[in-house]
Amino acid sequence: MKNFYIAKSRRLRSTPYTSRIENQGVTAYTIYNHMLLPASFGNLEKEYFHLKEHVQVWDVAAERQVQITGKDSSKLVQLMTCRNLLKAKIGRCYYAPIIDEQGRMLNDPVALKLGENRWWLSLADSDIGLYAKGIASGLGLQVQITEPDVNILAVQGPKSFKLMEKVLGKKITELKFFGFDYYSFKGNKFLIARSGWSKQGGYEVYVENREAGQSLYDELFLAGKEFQVEPGCPNLIERIESALLSAGNDFDSGDNPFECGFDKYIDIKSDINYLGKKALIKISRDGIDRKLMGVLLDSNKVEITEEIPLHNGENLVGSLRSAAYSPNLKKVVGIAMIKKEYWDKKTSIELKVGEKKSKGKLCDLPIV
Amino acid sequence: MKNFYIAKSRRLRSTPYTSRIENQGVTAYTIYNHMLLPASFGNLEKEYFHLKEHVQVWDVAAERQVQITGKDSSKLVQLMTCRNLLKAKIGRCYYAPIIDEQGRMLNDPVALKLGENRWWLSLADSDIGLYAKGIASGLGLQVQITEPDVNILAVQGPKSFKLMEKVLGKKITELKFFGFDYYSFKGNKFLIARSGWSKQGGYEVYVENREAGQSLYDELFLAGKEFQVEPGCPNLIERIESALLSAGNDFDSGDNPFECGFDKYIDIKSDINYLGKKALIKISRDGIDRKLMGVLLDSNKVEITEEIPLHNGENLVGSLRSAAYSPNLKKVVGIAMIKKEYWDKKTSIELKVGEKKSKGKLCDLPIV
Repeated sequence: MKNFYIAKSRRLRSTPYTSRIENQGVTAYTIYNHMLLPASFGNLEKEYFHLKEHVQVWDVAAERQVQITGKDSSKLVQLMTCRNLLKAKIGRCYYAPIIDEQGRMLNDPVALKLGENRWWLSLADSDIGLYAKGIASGLGLQVQITEPDVNILAVQGPKSFKLMEKVLGKKITELKFFGFDYYSFKGNKFLIARSGWSKQGGYEVYVENREAGQSLYDELFLAGKEFQVEPGCPNLIERIESALLSAGNDFDSGDNPFECGFDKYIDIKSDINYLGKKALIKISRDGIDRKLMGVLLDSNKVEITEEIPLHNGENLVGSLRSAAYSPNLKKVVGIAMIKKEYWDKKTSIELKVGEKKSKGKLCDLPIV
Repeated sequence: MKNFYIAKSRRLRSTPYTSRIENQGVTAYTIYNHMLLPASFGNLEKEYFHLKEHVQVWDVAAERQVQITGKDSSKLVQLMTCRNLLKAKIGRCYYAPIIDEQGRMLNDPVALKLGENRWWLSLADSDIGLYAKGIASGLGLQVQITEPDVNILAVQGPKSFKLMEKVLGKKITELKFFGFDYYSFKGNKFLIARSGWSKQGGYEVYVENREAGQSLYDELFLAGKEFQVEPGCPNLIERIESALLSAGNDFDSGDNPFECGFDKYIDIKSDINYLGKKALIKISRDGIDRKLMGVLLDSNKVEITEEIPLHNGENLVGSLRSAAYSPNLKKVVGIAMIKKEYWDKKTSIELKVGEKKSKGKLCDLPIV
């Protein structure tokens, strides 16, 4: 695949860390929520092994927050997601698929309950703030909806715990997965969650003060030398193996949350009220005829820019939506939407890209 | 400024023309509505002069459509825009700023009335389909909101009229500015508007059938040889000189339509109903204290990735949001948000980027 430059502009927003990562050797960006999100520092495979062994600091400011406050804030958040958030606790993160009235996926944010009437939705790539504004205006809800200037730094990898303890103190090691709390560094308070877009462990620092965040960024590299800290970014190979689904890649607004395997985040039994509930009840009753599965291909390279059909002989099995070569498994790993009649994992599959054919098989998610 | 690659993926959608423009030498992309939008074919200044003299074919599929149909469709479209669309006619395009309840800019699409109950909003870069879905769900409107697979080809430049006449017949030359109608090519019907994101004249072809669109694309290059046709894209220099505002660059959701100079598209006097009307009435009564203006700088280069302050001596005059060197004017041309006390065009201004200072002055929009 040929390489193309990104034409920067104000519309593709820079982050408080952009000048730092550019000095540190970022080579490629993607755009996410109208913002620069680093995609590589030049060697995806090297970054993959490093992430699994050491610790990386990521500029993931592009995970933008929709802040919803006001008396009807919890009502509005619940209206947007099929996950039951009635008993949500302050200080906890909730993976919360957002759907439309037809029960189709619009986003899969992490919802943070900051107070009884204060929520953040830490977004995947779509303007959910506009959805929230539309619903609120239509229903006349008493809420304020904003995009606060929060710019997340992620610290990911097995040594993230040691590094964060060194910089922020012992207490941070007590934070449970998907919990968050406030921690101090040089007199500034940071909301830090134990979360992140890898399965290698770590934290996300929700930076609310740009200068304080830059200072923390620099300190993480200084203090992290002994842990072989490197700059990094969500790693395509690792996130596919770990089945961290990517909105817009693995699913889009043509798919419903059952097809994405989000069953445990769907409440159709209690009496909570959300848009699309009727549609999900119907889908649940009828059953789905396709779902996301893992794919292993005997190939050393696949580049995906649109979904690619997978075949079994003459028959269409499904379509591949994300893929990367795993230097660990020595195969291409992928995520694909697979038709029901082929869910049996013994199905052998074939991918054809141009003249090149690759054979492979289906597998469960996560792959590793 | 260093160059960075774009990391392609399914999420950054390709268009039906992507393989063609890549063969034709596109060098840089921006991302617009989650889709690849070509930004340069290697020489912005050469492309600028060519656009002003000949004809170009542009892949602007990233101008996505929100289709709104159903009995309440006109009501919903009117709710989103401050422009009075009560008397909108089928077959006409309407530049229609979309605002939120606080009267802030969310998008500035061209609205096409396709039928009594069928509209397209040809979007700038934000997910207005989600805003529409939210409002419709909140109010229980009877509408269907979709993103049809429409992939616009623009034919722009002074020779576009000759080229389109040659390919589509004499009738297309009778189309008035911002009118649209259906025209046939090789047995396929195309919705074609006399519009486009340049002031050099031309058409936008709303392609609804991918293969037919590719065939038309190829024909435009074959038939266009005698008119020196070239592939192109919205040209940063030309669009700044012509004051074709770019949502996300020149304005964003922190600005209101009066500040953007959209006064003639704002109806606060009749009894139409739209979100944000109360806010706009208040703004109109209070007056605005800043607005978008043109900027001319004695410099041969400015690259904008965030807004840059403009000074007059020690005083902050405003901020520069878009800029490019104009080989025509031999100056940097720009669009800036300027504080009221400096609207007098005799104000001299200074821009400082790093250690480099440039002097200049304010001017009206459009610049040329």
